[in-house]
Amino acid sequence: MKHGANIYKYAKKLGCNPKEIIDFSSNINLYNPKTNITITNDIIIKYPDSSYKNLKKSISKKYAIKASQISLFNGATSAIFELFKNLKQNQVYLYAPLYGEYEKASQGKKIIKIDRFKNLDAKIKKNSIVVFVNPSTPDGRYYNLEKLFDYWQKQNCTIILDESFLEFEELKSFRNKINSYKKLYILQSFSKFNSCAGIRIGAIFSHKENIQKLKTPLWNLSSFDAEFLTKRLQNKKFKKTTHKLHNQQKKELYNILKKSNLFDKIYKSDSNFFLTKSKDAKEIFNHLLKHKILTRTCDSFDFLDDNYLRFAVKNKKHQINLKKTLNLKGK
Amino acid sequence: MKHGANIYKYAKKLGCNPKEIIDFSSNINLYNPKTNITITNDIIIKYPDSSYKNLKKSISKKYAIKASQISLFNGATSAIFELFKNLKQNQVYLYAPLYGEYEKASQGKKIIKIDRFKNLDAKIKKNSIVVFVNPSTPDGRYYNLEKLFDYWQKQNCTIILDESFLEFEELKSFRNKINSYKKLYILQSFSKFNSCAGIRIGAIFSHKENIQKLKTPLWNLSSFDAEFLTKRLQNKKFKKTTHKLHNQQKKELYNILKKSNLFDKIYKSDSNFFLTKSKDAKEIFNHLLKHKILTRTCDSFDFLDDNYLRFAVKNKKHQINLKKTLNLKGK
Repeated sequence: MKHGANIYKYAKKLGCNPKEIIDFSSNINLYNPKTNITITNDIIIKYPDSSYKNLKKSISKKYAIKASQISLFNGATSAIFELFKNLKQNQVYLYAPLYGEYEKASQGKKIIKIDRFKNLDAKIKKNSIVVFVNPSTPDGRYYNLEKLFDYWQKQNCTIILDESFLEFEELKSFRNKINSYKKLYILQSFSKFNSCAGIRIGAIFSHKENIQKLKTPLWNLSSFDAEFLTKRLQNKKFKKTTHKLHNQQKKELYNILKKSNLFDKIYKSDSNFFLTKSKDAKEIFNHLLKHKILTRTCDSFDFLDDNYLRFAVKNKKHQINLKKTLNLKGK
Repeated sequence: MKHGANIYKYAKKLGCNPKEIIDFSSNINLYNPKTNITITNDIIIKYPDSSYKNLKKSISKKYAIKASQISLFNGATSAIFELFKNLKQNQVYLYAPLYGEYEKASQGKKIIKIDRFKNLDAKIKKNSIVVFVNPSTPDGRYYNLEKLFDYWQKQNCTIILDESFLEFEELKSFRNKINSYKKLYILQSFSKFNSCAGIRIGAIFSHKENIQKLKTPLWNLSSFDAEFLTKRLQNKKFKKTTHKLHNQQKKELYNILKKSNLFDKIYKSDSNFFLTKSKDAKEIFNHLLKHKILTRTCDSFDFLDDNYLRFAVKNKKHQINLKKTLNLKGK
């Protein structure tokens, strides 16, 4: 199960419409104002400007990097696969648990998984690739990576940092290191914070020379998607409202999980989801599913098992529903 | 210059808005009814069904092939590049002229170009790859490929047929050979006939086992694009109206070009564009551009030079404008 996209599978299982399922497995920003894009014939008919200049300008401004340091792909998953096709080093260290995509993209290389819960200081071979998702998933912890970064750099590593969950809280990015360390690649999904999993745009930020080598097919982005994301990035209220709602609902979700007394551990999170541990996780999952609430099982993650569930921060109505349903289980 | 997408470059050169340019270089269906898609939050927020079941069902029905014989990519260009990454044979025969993408995608393999105007019966080495665009571009000629297909098959070739321009006239497809010849791949762009270059979806049709090997990243299509194309393929009036308009405007365009007396040759076309030859082509191109009419120069095509221009079939208003402007040149 990946990214909570399996509402379709579970809807089929439950014999209901996917729309009826409350999807706590999908860690997408809970704030989703209506978009005001008018679909003009221009968007549909014409070949877009193949350099996606307007979109790059918006990204450049928002993330404080140069347009020449940005490469755009049809989703972060595509970005990850394309990046790895271009990397010649044949040893990859994955700080796990992390998304399954990095392991899939590393196929053909030697993969070493480091348990970041227990062994953060693991030794890294010179000239290898390291991958770190920060804030991490499925636990949401943000790591202060300064010391590790220095070590990786000393080992002359190609460093891949995935900062797709950085914006939910005001956390420090490593984007400004792009200029000083040429072997740094930052992965950026726009779906999570911008609440748009249906919009398939992801980016790699890196040194200009790396970006030039990361060739993409002409017109690899949907014109509608490019238009949508350009407008969303320009919307200044979006960030402010997100933070307000996020903080409020995250606190509430923590309290709901805590007070349910169903979990042995709720991990500290710096993102928009909580990882929980409980020996009854399987039962809880099934109980919630019966009430059309889907959570993220975590046994597909390295170093985790079926005692873990992940809950994303959702809106008031959905969380009240979760609370009620968890309480039914508690009794 | 590719696919007429350079209106942005020429608009800059002319100091005008790209919208002011009449783009005869872009061979997109002239019929473009307003779409009636409502952008729901569902399209924007949720991860789409990663198998794009509804869209595949529509394609399957329209093109009379099984869903298991379809692989979808974010545009035909992406499809071409991904296909070639999966082909191990190291000799490629390109029946030229054809799009530049096939040559780019063949990088790393031995490329042999066959001048299809002069040397259609060229010998092909066993176990190689052959690429044929039918109807072809930039001339629009449809070839009866039965005999050649038998020869390629005898030589055990991997056959790539690009049928992206097949639907403008009622021409015979090779899709039904997918079941009998396992080394056949059919490339299908949906942008041309469906008048949607901003919608980035292209397909490969092939034997089920080939399709299974052509792995794509999860969610490689925009949800909006998938929704748009599903609806357009289901729209039965679209095809009928297109054919009516296309036939009428194509005839008119031919007459305009013919009666202008500016061209030494107008190639017979089975698609929605005409290739012309004239020793004054450069002058004609510049004259039209001055009047904000863009045509497709053809010197980037193999076996052609700057004496060739391509004109796509456009609506009445645009073609009247072309007629007037060509007449100014004639005087």
